[in-house]
Amino acid sequence: MTIDLPTAVSTRIEHALEAFFADRARTAAAHGPEFSELWSRTAEHARGGKLLRPRLFLEAVEAFRPCEAVGRVSDDRVTVDPDAAVRESAGRDAVDGLAAVLEILHYAFLLHDDVIDGDLVRRHRPNLIGTMRDLHPDAPAPASLHWGTSAAILMGDLLLSSAVLSCGRLSLPADVRVRVLDLVDEAITETVAGEHLDVGLSNGAITATFDSVVAMTTLKTATYSFALPLRLAGALASAGPEVDRTLADAGRDLGFAFQVQDDLLTMFGDHADHGKDVLSDLREGKETVLMSFLRTTPQWDDVAAACGDSAIGEADADRIRAAMESSGARAFAERLVAERLHRVSRTLGGSTVPVSVRRVVAACVESIDGRAL
Amino acid sequence: MTIDLPTAVSTRIEHALEAFFADRARTAAAHGPEFSELWSRTAEHARGGKLLRPRLFLEAVEAFRPCEAVGRVSDDRVTVDPDAAVRESAGRDAVDGLAAVLEILHYAFLLHDDVIDGDLVRRHRPNLIGTMRDLHPDAPAPASLHWGTSAAILMGDLLLSSAVLSCGRLSLPADVRVRVLDLVDEAITETVAGEHLDVGLSNGAITATFDSVVAMTTLKTATYSFALPLRLAGALASAGPEVDRTLADAGRDLGFAFQVQDDLLTMFGDHADHGKDVLSDLREGKETVLMSFLRTTPQWDDVAAACGDSAIGEADADRIRAAMESSGARAFAERLVAERLHRVSRTLGGSTVPVSVRRVVAACVESIDGRAL
Repeated sequence: MTIDLPTAVSTRIEHALEAFFADRARTAAAHGPEFSELWSRTAEHARGGKLLRPRLFLEAVEAFRPCEAVGRVSDDRVTVDPDAAVRESAGRDAVDGLAAVLEILHYAFLLHDDVIDGDLVRRHRPNLIGTMRDLHPDAPAPASLHWGTSAAILMGDLLLSSAVLSCGRLSLPADVRVRVLDLVDEAITETVAGEHLDVGLSNGAITATFDSVVAMTTLKTATYSFALPLRLAGALASAGPEVDRTLADAGRDLGFAFQVQDDLLTMFGDHADHGKDVLSDLREGKETVLMSFLRTTPQWDDVAAACGDSAIGEADADRIRAAMESSGARAFAERLVAERLHRVSRTLGGSTVPVSVRRVVAACVESIDGRAL
Repeated sequence: MTIDLPTAVSTRIEHALEAFFADRARTAAAHGPEFSELWSRTAEHARGGKLLRPRLFLEAVEAFRPCEAVGRVSDDRVTVDPDAAVRESAGRDAVDGLAAVLEILHYAFLLHDDVIDGDLVRRHRPNLIGTMRDLHPDAPAPASLHWGTSAAILMGDLLLSSAVLSCGRLSLPADVRVRVLDLVDEAITETVAGEHLDVGLSNGAITATFDSVVAMTTLKTATYSFALPLRLAGALASAGPEVDRTLADAGRDLGFAFQVQDDLLTMFGDHADHGKDVLSDLREGKETVLMSFLRTTPQWDDVAAACGDSAIGEADADRIRAAMESSGARAFAERLVAERLHRVSRTLGGSTVPVSVRRVVAACVESIDGRAL
């Protein structure tokens, strides 16, 4: 997330992920060579991410640590907490385990997202669906695609349940553990609700308005990607409800800004750098803030037929891009990113969130703001 | 499961399920009318089952209770357990919660199973996919089917994670809680591995042999439906490893016999009573012990083309049925059921499983044995 991320943080996450997958690979091997193969392909794909969520979480945990040493971070005072040392010693494994959980949860969502969208490519290469399909080239095309899709559904299920089970096993005081589970529960529920809204907006079952697109973006991405890592770090430090609420608000705004910036990059950025396929999103009729703005302008009539048409090509994408420029949709989305990031800074400024934690959030703001087109 | 099930057991499960869904419905309502509607449809479908798994679990828990009152059920001795009273008082909620978890887990698996198999009907009526598709009749057929399928994927995810999260929240001593989580983890992993094998056997990616069909059946159904409820009851009573192993073995055999009996009922029983659609299974090329036996006989050549053909009708099903009779496949499957049930009785007979728990298992044996064709 931040530019100067200490290598140690990445290494810790990679170790935790490796431990998770190695453990599971042993179990998988007991269920036959096909399942073992599926598991090792899944592990390979799952470890290809940028570790955005676990990094943010670990940075926030480290930032909360000085407060924890003196005591509980409650809303407006610091009280001495005799349990802090116990938590400290038991805490390292729990912290690293939770970091891995965040990445695994993310990958499980991506898997089912790809199934729902019918996508076969991610990060410039075949995703798990595409990979499993290609392992079975002699079968008729529908059978090999079905093999890939089923594998992604099943591995998504297994990763999702494994991630959640890991949270239940954490060696944490009962109240902290239940708080962690509640936060994970809330995040999964919101992500599922957001994905459902996304499908409904794309296929017309739900009317696309600016508000519904904002709700979808926040629920689907912002909650689990930004609010959850920050709030989990707060929960481990027994942060009070006001700190938690502030981190939730800041996380949702950060995540929303991140997603709109991502939509801008997909539409106007360099595909080779960014790795998202704009044509695939346009063909699906994927809803974004850019689209919802464009729809309310006269330029919409020129491109409406192309949006959601499964046969469009690069020339159509260029026309849509031009319409987004001339209608002001691009400028609107850019302004929206800036406004939300500004709101994050304001929210934190007036809060009791420790200064060290505010710095982590400020680095996020800077990083999202600086993502180059 | 058993014939004389006390009404109180069903009522307890229904209350626990109601509490689970009511709680979630409130959360869902916060995410818009479409999500709220989806959630209430899901709850309605999820509550339509026979409660086989939670009933077996509650019966086993009750059967373990007299042992718990005197102390820990270890492998070969009974020791006084001072924590028993504490567990007893905190236990009722945990027990009912786990019963609900078993039913919810089962329904989550059914949802994703239907997605993978492309099924739109369950229990003689449209399943969740079919129901959601029909709510969106004006859209083109692929869009409304996509709406139904996406809903089933997402609700399966939410129910799966909710069920597992509930286990993590249980008020149980830490060692018992971790044991419960480990058992749930093992069961989910085996179910996923079994479903993967099932898909591979149906579409030809994995070669169908008698052994692979037996493994698939055991992994996909027997573990979570029979072994898990019995072992969870043992875990709550702090049963020792030998008792656990015996319950695992007995549960797998029970579940295997149950599934083969179910395959026999689907193939030769009355569709109106049983509710499974034999044509849908035959069209998919669903692997069963009946099929794997038939494949090794001369009768196979006459029906091979029809098995897995998406266009077959009732006359083809009759030909396949006749081939299963004349080849001895039906008699073989019936013998297999009887043998496995006999093995369950033998396994328990030589074990330290308390007599009261053995009686619960014996009632299962009787019930599976007596399922009428």
